[in-house]
Amino acid sequence: MTPASPFISDIPAAQALQAWRAACAAARCPARVPAVEMPVAEAVGRVTAAAVWAKRSSPAFDSAGMDGIAVRAAATVGAGETTPVLLAPSEFEVVDTGDPLPAGYDAVVMREHVHRTAEGRAELRAAVPPYQHVRSIGEDISATELLLPEGHRLRPVDVAACAAAGATELTVRRRPLVVIVPTGDEITPVGTEPAPGQILDTNSLMLAAQAREIGCDAQVTEIVVDDPDRLTTALRQAARDADLVILVAGSSAGRDDYTAEVVARAGVLSVHGVAVRPGHPVVLGAVTGEVGTPVMGAPGYPVSAALTFDIFAAPVLAALEGTAPPERPATSARLARKLASVIGSDDWVRVRLGRVEGDIVATPLPRGAGVLTSLVRADGLLVVPAGVEGHHAGEQVHVELLRGLGEIGRTIVAIGSHDLILDMAASWLRAADPLVTLASSNVGSLGGLVALRDGLCHLAGSHLLDPATGEYTLPYLDRLFSDGPETAVIRLVHRDQGLLVAPGNPAGLTGIEDLIRPGLRYVNRQRGAGTRALLDYELNRRGLDREQISGYAREEHTHLAVAAAVAAGRADTGLGILAAARAFGLDFVPVSREPYDLCLRATVVDDELLAPLWALLERADFRAEVEQMGGYSCTEMGHRIR
Amino acid sequence: MTPASPFISDIPAAQALQAWRAACAAARCPARVPAVEMPVAEAVGRVTAAAVWAKRSSPAFDSAGMDGIAVRAAATVGAGETTPVLLAPSEFEVVDTGDPLPAGYDAVVMREHVHRTAEGRAELRAAVPPYQHVRSIGEDISATELLLPEGHRLRPVDVAACAAAGATELTVRRRPLVVIVPTGDEITPVGTEPAPGQILDTNSLMLAAQAREIGCDAQVTEIVVDDPDRLTTALRQAARDADLVILVAGSSAGRDDYTAEVVARAGVLSVHGVAVRPGHPVVLGAVTGEVGTPVMGAPGYPVSAALTFDIFAAPVLAALEGTAPPERPATSARLARKLASVIGSDDWVRVRLGRVEGDIVATPLPRGAGVLTSLVRADGLLVVPAGVEGHHAGEQVHVELLRGLGEIGRTIVAIGSHDLILDMAASWLRAADPLVTLASSNVGSLGGLVALRDGLCHLAGSHLLDPATGEYTLPYLDRLFSDGPETAVIRLVHRDQGLLVAPGNPAGLTGIEDLIRPGLRYVNRQRGAGTRALLDYELNRRGLDREQISGYAREEHTHLAVAAAVAAGRADTGLGILAAARAFGLDFVPVSREPYDLCLRATVVDDELLAPLWALLERADFRAEVEQMGGYSCTEMGHRIR
Repeated sequence: MTPASPFISDIPAAQALQAWRAACAAARCPARVPAVEMPVAEAVGRVTAAAVWAKRSSPAFDSAGMDGIAVRAAATVGAGETTPVLLAPSEFEVVDTGDPLPAGYDAVVMREHVHRTAEGRAELRAAVPPYQHVRSIGEDISATELLLPEGHRLRPVDVAACAAAGATELTVRRRPLVVIVPTGDEITPVGTEPAPGQILDTNSLMLAAQAREIGCDAQVTEIVVDDPDRLTTALRQAARDADLVILVAGSSAGRDDYTAEVVARAGVLSVHGVAVRPGHPVVLGAVTGEVGTPVMGAPGYPVSAALTFDIFAAPVLAALEGTAPPERPATSARLARKLASVIGSDDWVRVRLGRVEGDIVATPLPRGAGVLTSLVRADGLLVVPAGVEGHHAGEQVHVELLRGLGEIGRTIVAIGSHDLILDMAASWLRAADPLVTLASSNVGSLGGLVALRDGLCHLAGSHLLDPATGEYTLPYLDRLFSDGPETAVIRLVHRDQGLLVAPGNPAGLTGIEDLIRPGLRYVNRQRGAGTRALLDYELNRRGLDREQISGYAREEHTHLAVAAAVAAGRADTGLGILAAARAFGLDFVPVSREPYDLCLRATVVDDELLAPLWALLERADFRAEVEQMGGYSCTEMGHRIR
Repeated sequence: MTPASPFISDIPAAQALQAWRAACAAARCPARVPAVEMPVAEAVGRVTAAAVWAKRSSPAFDSAGMDGIAVRAAATVGAGETTPVLLAPSEFEVVDTGDPLPAGYDAVVMREHVHRTAEGRAELRAAVPPYQHVRSIGEDISATELLLPEGHRLRPVDVAACAAAGATELTVRRRPLVVIVPTGDEITPVGTEPAPGQILDTNSLMLAAQAREIGCDAQVTEIVVDDPDRLTTALRQAARDADLVILVAGSSAGRDDYTAEVVARAGVLSVHGVAVRPGHPVVLGAVTGEVGTPVMGAPGYPVSAALTFDIFAAPVLAALEGTAPPERPATSARLARKLASVIGSDDWVRVRLGRVEGDIVATPLPRGAGVLTSLVRADGLLVVPAGVEGHHAGEQVHVELLRGLGEIGRTIVAIGSHDLILDMAASWLRAADPLVTLASSNVGSLGGLVALRDGLCHLAGSHLLDPATGEYTLPYLDRLFSDGPETAVIRLVHRDQGLLVAPGNPAGLTGIEDLIRPGLRYVNRQRGAGTRALLDYELNRRGLDREQISGYAREEHTHLAVAAAVAAGRADTGLGILAAARAFGLDFVPVSREPYDLCLRATVVDDELLAPLWALLERADFRAEVEQMGGYSCTEMGHRIR
């Protein structure tokens, strides 16, 4: 190993795609998948492989456009309010909408405008022009006209129109087949229990679903170990049936990363490394043979894998069907905070969106390529192009939407401290009304209050202890909102904070004093978290020095992450709530009981968006479930304390 | 039959939906379809029936975040550019991205920052903080955290995250089952050859596909004749398995319209008639039994049926799954022409969209409930609310999108005269490049030139004869664009115009002179059509009076519609092009040969959007196919004549 320049290239995405396509064409990869004939009813979702020309006209005959009577227009000439025309029973015929126009008639009078006399005659008080309320043959479709061009993905209305125009079968593209080859010694299939150090093969599951979502068939092969010969054999075999092969992982340049080498061996390596983050270590090429097969090596980090599919695989698969790739709607949004981006790569940033006081606000989510939940929770994608260093807070940015704007507008946005009750509330609200969403981002109490001040959220969850007064949250609000606007505070719960320790409390911890014990490994919360403020306050009260605590600098962002670290034996203890200890089967050494409050702007309290939440806090069954988790008291739940 | 007040009600859509839901609840219709357990891999597209809480953390262990070496941070203290630290082979371990962090180490140094000495030691020139480049256990997911709420439709990333969090099965809603019951004596199944007066059952095909598109199962029953007893039996039977029954047609108030009566007989009739055009004669209710089943009577006009599904069935089906109905993205667009709308009903207007000189322009399509192709060709839906009388030309309107804005931006918009060659070109262009769309609206030559002047299209197809000069198109351009901007004209073809007559020319027509023959039935083109201008010119030249032509007032909008009318024996003749005669197997009496041109703004000629079209016009194989249709000469195809 030597200090190295970047080990793989950094080709712009568009250029990489172009190079890949050229390499595929040179390797005699088919331009399109073959066409097949298919009954119209089954063709929905498929792409037309030939233009559809109408075989028949629709409607196929002149018909009544209204319920009423068919007449000869000439027979109504002269009819008026004071000069009614009376038609004998032989001079008209009763028709309903859609009935063929009886022979000899050329107009329809709506039944509301007809008076039938006792003798069965029809009295008209207005003349009608020829062809009034007649639906002409071919009004919808004229035989031989172009109904749909080639390369059109068929929707329900399309197949209905094709059937109306006389088609019983349609010529469409067969679905492209994507074969996914998971690789890696450490990979184990979903459904197995991973041994220590093993990783579940969730990428294949995801990539197959992504392929099916855009109209392809997908197969996942057995997992192939990190061995170049076996990988080459597996790739060649997959290429036999596939229209596109995806090798999952091994696309970087680590010691066991053979994907680029294997693609080169089995055919042509076109691209290794693209200027896209996450997603950089992509491999693009083609397997050669009688005909070629495109192959993509996807990075192993799940966010990279997902985005790589969208950026490279989806356009190539759409081209195989002879159509355009799916397109995401987009919106403009106000960026919640400064966003730095490295020059030289397109940076795909996942963002949460919320409509706060009429404004759409985008809050960046964690950017790690391994944080799949950032994609799960994302409402949109913000692409910072390679030539841009980032964006300022408050800048209007262009965001591709992953959820509808209507749904986003119905979302209660909570930013601040993490508490399990917010998760519970999110789930209870949705169960009661599918149209209600509560989305919380965990940035700690102080971060939430700042977000509230900056108009980025509806609610800020806080349990922030003021060391000067020993009071919670309110002193911070006074400082942050000294220039207004007015704020409101709703009590959510009181909850117990304490030291999370392994079962049986092996280190025999009794309280904060023990944290400076040499060799004890602590795991802390991030700056601005209420729990960290609590630790600092308690240390200060006791005149203890944070420098003496081993692990004070190690930060986690939620109670659960702290509990996970202790449960995994990576730390001996951390401060957190009882519910987190219970969730991981840990023991708990109480330190204090604190209030946890929801802060909001006073004008928002009565917003109908929040009404379902306030109603939930009054429900006895909800409170019971909260208290059952342990360490919570709901006696003041829902009280407005400011 | 008596002159009647509106026979069915006109309830606003939102109120109708509310009334229907209340009636369903009262009839003990289930609020949700049952939950089922399903392997994660199969659950994509389903809706969660319970919150998904993480069972395991992901990653499940601390791992290397980079390729490099694992070290103890403490061992690197003091390292700097001039004070390198040398680690013995026992003091570090080589790791690749994703490898578990070896026991005893707490940080990773990227391999680019490590120099290995000849003796196998690692030289570092910077100290590293603890936990640098370490991916913590739970970085993505902490065990017990809320991953997804109830009521969430699962996407590929969601199932991957669920699997990573230890889920192997998920609790999801079973798919709602929609049973569609086609009704009507005149209805015949798709795939049969309809007898005169019969109508193909394309609605069931469409509604089943719409149901499947939003994640439901769908079944279509046998067609039921117009008999109240049989209809009631069929409805009750369908309700046994279905979560929603759709009776197709019979929902109006004609003599054979039994749907409302049948719904009332089988249970509760909640709504009959809504203030929505098209879609007005809707029936909403519930079949009663041990549990109730919602039933919707859909109108028989295809556009009404399709919209009715979106407006009423889709929200009820989404609620059965416990989630929100799908949502269309929207845009703002400039309305191409004045749009009148009747007060009292929401008016769903189908529009074509195009990006012309940077502006998104919406052109209304035909508004008839029977014109399904208006929905096929629509790029968007413009809803004129019940309280609004319409919109002015040029007004900015809100449009729900049926195609992506990117695709719309890549569309060549042609408005004007109809010629089959434009259809052919649309299909050839798409076949050559899936990203190219040519959309033409047929409004006649004059309408096209006006649209071009108003900035509504890129191209206007015209063959408009100026009676004063006998010249085509150019005099009109001079008049319409007298104040600029500069225009360009590209010759498409010369083509033969003549009288379309039944095979064998039974009336023995020889030319324009014969059109005034008593009893001869003519079918004309609409005002502003070049073919109508040609007729007027030819009549004028001969001193003939249009009033003498029976059928002069009967208008069709395309050559093919004229040919269809003649082929169906509804008219004896009409003026049109040879290609239309050939398409319908008609005979043709030549009248004149005319130029057909493409007009555009001079600045647009070199726009890259149009380059594929100009290239196509140069292709010998395209020209050959055009001339093979008969009646066309391509000798000047592609010439710029202005």
